[in-house]
Amino acid sequence: MKYCFGVDIGGTTVKLGLFQVDGTLVDKWEIPTRKENQGEYILPDTAKSIQENLKKHNVEKEDIVGVGVGVPAAVQGESVVKSTANLGWGYKEVKHELEQLTGLKVKIGNDANVAALGEMWKGGGCGYQNLVMVTLGTGVGGGIIVDGRILVGVHGIAGEIGHLTVNEEETEICGCTRTGCLEQYASATGIVRLAKRKLENCKEDTILNNENITAKDVFDAVKAGDAVAMDIAEQFGSYLGRALVSIAIVLDPDIFVISGGVSKAGEVLLEYIEKYYREKALWSTKETKFALATLGNDAGICGAAKLILGA
Amino acid sequence: MKYCFGVDIGGTTVKLGLFQVDGTLVDKWEIPTRKENQGEYILPDTAKSIQENLKKHNVEKEDIVGVGVGVPAAVQGESVVKSTANLGWGYKEVKHELEQLTGLKVKIGNDANVAALGEMWKGGGCGYQNLVMVTLGTGVGGGIIVDGRILVGVHGIAGEIGHLTVNEEETEICGCTRTGCLEQYASATGIVRLAKRKLENCKEDTILNNENITAKDVFDAVKAGDAVAMDIAEQFGSYLGRALVSIAIVLDPDIFVISGGVSKAGEVLLEYIEKYYREKALWSTKETKFALATLGNDAGICGAAKLILGA
Repeated sequence: MKYCFGVDIGGTTVKLGLFQVDGTLVDKWEIPTRKENQGEYILPDTAKSIQENLKKHNVEKEDIVGVGVGVPAAVQGESVVKSTANLGWGYKEVKHELEQLTGLKVKIGNDANVAALGEMWKGGGCGYQNLVMVTLGTGVGGGIIVDGRILVGVHGIAGEIGHLTVNEEETEICGCTRTGCLEQYASATGIVRLAKRKLENCKEDTILNNENITAKDVFDAVKAGDAVAMDIAEQFGSYLGRALVSIAIVLDPDIFVISGGVSKAGEVLLEYIEKYYREKALWSTKETKFALATLGNDAGICGAAKLILGA
Repeated sequence: MKYCFGVDIGGTTVKLGLFQVDGTLVDKWEIPTRKENQGEYILPDTAKSIQENLKKHNVEKEDIVGVGVGVPAAVQGESVVKSTANLGWGYKEVKHELEQLTGLKVKIGNDANVAALGEMWKGGGCGYQNLVMVTLGTGVGGGIIVDGRILVGVHGIAGEIGHLTVNEEETEICGCTRTGCLEQYASATGIVRLAKRKLENCKEDTILNNENITAKDVFDAVKAGDAVAMDIAEQFGSYLGRALVSIAIVLDPDIFVISGGVSKAGEVLLEYIEKYYREKALWSTKETKFALATLGNDAGICGAAKLILGA
């Protein structure tokens, strides 16, 4: 049997997985991300951990196809990171350095893109080759898979769908310095913004409380039948559903896979998104499928493994 | 030397080209498109014309790599058309039928996508592998090339960018039955609509005349320094520029290539589009290049040849 490693480098921990090439996860573990000295220990720590794991499982280096790596940064040519504040790195030849350190073949990808590949391989998008993953977390991220391969883009920023303009009237500034971005309405913080705006002048009865409100509170209240929460969810669904209509016109994918903290709300989330999507979608893109992500924190290591195994 | 054929099947004529595999155009010609009897003569006529051309140039069948074909329809798997009113075809296995008729390898693609491939190979996008072609004609069409290959989409309708929603306030219905589509503002007919709306209540001096106005009239007046025409061009540029911002966020291409009848206005057109694009674009997509298409009516046969030659 041949094996590969999937590595997901995050700001707090580096997650690692040893996989058989048939997709079976043999072992998974994590190590701390040491960001000191411009993150210079991260790749050596990762390489050391890989060597130790080979010994632990009595696997020979010759039986390792390679190492796939997801990083929180734009990636060029499956090899180079220009800079990532999250890890302290400036320009870094990640592929080359980790190949030197491990003696194994390495491919790297942006973490959101790699997670999308993971969900295609073993998760919510299993069985499809054309997938858009929409990650609803603190921000809104995206990962695009076309014919089984990551769509990277020329500057490594394809799929940054959180910054699609969905409201020309917005006056508050987004983190990107522009206004009316999807992220301002469909991220966890965006949903809180929508809720606060709604609750400010709200005369209706509601179990929602304007203090310390979270996106989870909103969808819990939706499930409890709260009309005010449902109205906030309608706004969320309208912004996100219409953005996905545009994405489907450009890419015509098999499936949208919804992931991230907000997606823990479950199927009810898809109902609000799909309602607006199906109403507004063009022609046969009305049939595009929707699913929740299923891999959770393992999407990164799975996708990284698939990256090195190839389409 | 090896050769290939590029064929562009249109509603009025079938255009054909004999190419050397290095891209040199050896011969080009056209035959009428006979649409009688559900278009049953179109492929036999094409095959006969290819045979005659082989004889004319004294080229052996063994020296032909294959035949690439662009058709005015959504295409699945480089082989099948489900239906196209333009040619009278219902479900048709175009690849299989033309292979039987010619004894040559055949690949087919949607005509807008194939033209984009042509502009990448030998036209305005030459030297780039990631390109979005925007065709401004009676409607607005699109063709997307990623890593040198056509992005087809699961239903064969990826890149139908004329139907991106750019105005939520629009009340007039688009041909697609939806409202506020890019095509309603950036096609030749869309520009006329913008002009008529502007001229209806216009008190300013202008050389534009509300009767029989065309998109060409508008851009001719822009070049003559007409302020009213410039205002119409600003509206056009704003709608199209902002739509391309969204497309760049999804795809992050090297270059936008602008083609179709409206593009005959020349560089002035790019000025109005780029003004809004550069202002609104996200991060490094601000640097995305713009060019006018250069192949005109030859884009189809060139792209069809490139389709059969491969990425």
